[in-house]
Amino acid sequence: MAIEAELARMLEGVRAHGPLVHCITNYVTVESCANAVLAIGASPIMTDEAEDVEDIVSICGALDLNIGTLNARTIESMRIAGRKATEAGTPIVLDPVGAGASRLRTATASGLLDDLGISVVRGNMSEVKALAGASTSTKGVDANPLDAVTEDTLAEAAAFACDFARRAGCVVAITGAIDVVADEARAFAVFNGSPLQGRITGAGCMLSAVCGAYAADHRDDTLVATLAAVVHMGIAGQVASERMGEKDGTGSFHTYLMDALSTLDGAAMRDRAFVREIARG
Amino acid sequence: MAIEAELARMLEGVRAHGPLVHCITNYVTVESCANAVLAIGASPIMTDEAEDVEDIVSICGALDLNIGTLNARTIESMRIAGRKATEAGTPIVLDPVGAGASRLRTATASGLLDDLGISVVRGNMSEVKALAGASTSTKGVDANPLDAVTEDTLAEAAAFACDFARRAGCVVAITGAIDVVADEARAFAVFNGSPLQGRITGAGCMLSAVCGAYAADHRDDTLVATLAAVVHMGIAGQVASERMGEKDGTGSFHTYLMDALSTLDGAAMRDRAFVREIARG
Amino acid sequence: MAIEAELARMLEGVRAHGPLVHCITNYVTVESCANAVLAIGASPIMTDEAEDVEDIVSICGALDLNIGTLNARTIESMRIAGRKATEAGTPIVLDPVGAGASRLRTATASGLLDDLGISVVRGNMSEVKALAGASTSTKGVDANPLDAVTEDTLAEAAAFACDFARRAGCVVAITGAIDVVADEARAFAVFNGSPLQGRITGAGCMLSAVCGAYAADHRDDTLVATLAAVVHMGIAGQVASERMGEKDGTGSFHTYLMDALSTLDGAAMRDRAFVREIARG
Repeated sequence: MAIEAELARMLEGVRAHGPLVHCITNYVTVESCANAVLAIGASPIMTDEAEDVEDIVSICGALDLNIGTLNARTIESMRIAGRKATEAGTPIVLDPVGAGASRLRTATASGLLDDLGISVVRGNMSEVKALAGASTSTKGVDANPLDAVTEDTLAEAAAFACDFARRAGCVVAITGAIDVVADEARAFAVFNGSPLQGRITGAGCMLSAVCGAYAADHRDDTLVATLAAVVHMGIAGQVASERMGEKDGTGSFHTYLMDALSTLDGAAMRDRAFVREIARG
Repeated sequence: MAIEAELARMLEGVRAHGPLVHCITNYVTVESCANAVLAIGASPIMTDEAEDVEDIVSICGALDLNIGTLNARTIESMRIAGRKATEAGTPIVLDPVGAGASRLRTATASGLLDDLGISVVRGNMSEVKALAGASTSTKGVDANPLDAVTEDTLAEAAAFACDFARRAGCVVAITGAIDVVADEARAFAVFNGSPLQGRITGAGCMLSAVCGAYAADHRDDTLVATLAAVVHMGIAGQVASERMGEKDGTGSFHTYLMDALSTLDGAAMRDRAFVREIARG
Repeated sequence: MAIEAELARMLEGVRAHGPLVHCITNYVTVESCANAVLAIGASPIMTDEAEDVEDIVSICGALDLNIGTLNARTIESMRIAGRKATEAGTPIVLDPVGAGASRLRTATASGLLDDLGISVVRGNMSEVKALAGASTSTKGVDANPLDAVTEDTLAEAAAFACDFARRAGCVVAITGAIDVVADEARAFAVFNGSPLQGRITGAGCMLSAVCGAYAADHRDDTLVATLAAVVHMGIAGQVASERMGEKDGTGSFHTYLMDALSTLDGAAMRDRAFVREIARG
């Protein structure tokens, strides 16, 4: 099956099965994350209390750990939920928001990656470099412009991603102007998406939660499931962008992005996916 | 006065008096709850700190307790605020989000219901069944499809609701495709609403906060006040649904729902209310 | 340079430089605050963990402290971040949400103002009066209607604002139907804005975060930088209001407000700014 058809099949699977995704995520973009998960046909549950997370993760198909507004209490809850998910073989997505911007963020994300059975890391290049131990400086929660992936640096980015995936034992999705999705053996570039996604908060957080839904529904192929999530979000960004009118700005873009997440179907996914496997050097 | 006229009068009362509603609610949908309370003409105050809640509940007309993202600290704050409200005779709405999905949620909601002077419980059927001690399984924070109320099961649902209301000593609003609002003596079915309300997060949470505003402004008839809140939200869902264009999805629906909450007036409430008292078997 | 040209220049500076703003803010309107900061061309970072805030404030151009959903943990984090910012000479904006409505809020806001090097206080008149120790009663988190600033009370409001600014050693922005922005020597009235801003949650919180971005980029003139932030938000409110269609309500207004924040340019700022320096009596 061509990769585009595979991606479309996965979107249809998520919509058909509606997996439950347990999110322990930041309070900034949590409503958007819940709505994004609902938009793609899955169901979100947000809970971060130590006493509650084991029961909830037990009924869920995936766990999304996002350190955007981490604190001592929720880091502990992430560990408890993460251990339970690891034991059960439930896919875990890690979103290392702001790794590289503070010691606590870098250490927390690294610790979760080391100690838990993480299936997918989804971050920007600066965050993933910070996790890889490379010297980098994250611009707050945004990628350092020096870390932008371009056509010229694509082979290098793919090699970095595969190496990271191999060492971390997971799939990695490095998102930016061009997205790179890789496991230890293969890497894909995704050319879908809109620059406007960087003008609103939460596009990355939403994607991580969406990755959880795709990973829950397609446990046999986490690499392509993650690719499908990235493409779903990217096409939604393009559809939203095309809809922008003269007076529209970032508020309308946010609404249109959610609209497009919710209305995208398999046929449009297949037609608009702009994905290329990156040859290894 | 016909029930529809009574509902319209209550909407106009809320808009005229602008009651203050203290919400201790989850961080997922809290902004939507605040905006929903503002949209119907009331004023929200969100605070969950033990040291702050007594002062705030003292100046409010109602208290909304929502356990969506409960934790040990906020459970204690709910208890402190709830005791103060109970002493003062201030109406309390309880939204038992996810009761049935975890032990902590079921136990917390049951404890609040037992210990405080709750005026209104607003939840889906699975949550209310969990509170009633019936064996059930909540699908995360959504109702179990097996618990759906239909025309065929309406008399049974009404009997359950009245029995629950009698034992709990409060009004209960069980919302879903058909909503049931009951006290120990009477039950109403509400046929307003749109399936799209289930495709966004927060429709239930918003309704609970809105119930607080109606209960604050109409203390003499909590049953009909709760019915008015449910109808207000249901009509808003329908108005929003009718406005959906070809490219619109769940993002636009959320915006249109808030628009409709804020623009609905008494005349439209009277004309569009679709309510029926359910005869007791 | 005429004041309108100065304001336009400042808007362009923020867009060109994209300062980072660290927000410790309430969980009700935090997503809107992040999106507002992004809309004007700056970058937000939200973190409230004691162990994280020093690293983050070190890389930021301003700190926004908003007590909307204060608790013991985040108050301590505000103090830690605030001391670090004070040492570094980083501008701090204080938003005393609900000061006057509870003892904890009044005491916390007063304590932060006394102990830290606050650059800007942004609140409604009731909140600022509470901080000034005047007897007042805040209507929850909204201003008491008796505190409304009108043309008739403008000179009195300006005198109060200048006196408050002198005693507190900062700039103060008192927002309402007419906004007053003052330091100890000068006061400006801003006539931009729309009553609809009071019908949604977060217009004030967003403005405080936006004040942070302006203060970060224009450290040499905090008074005019704050004025520019207030005018930016006010014009955005008007642009949003003018766009309201027949079926639009508060949901659409929120979207249009964010759109207008993001699309406003220097030329429109200069043309639409409606500002007057208030002569001292």
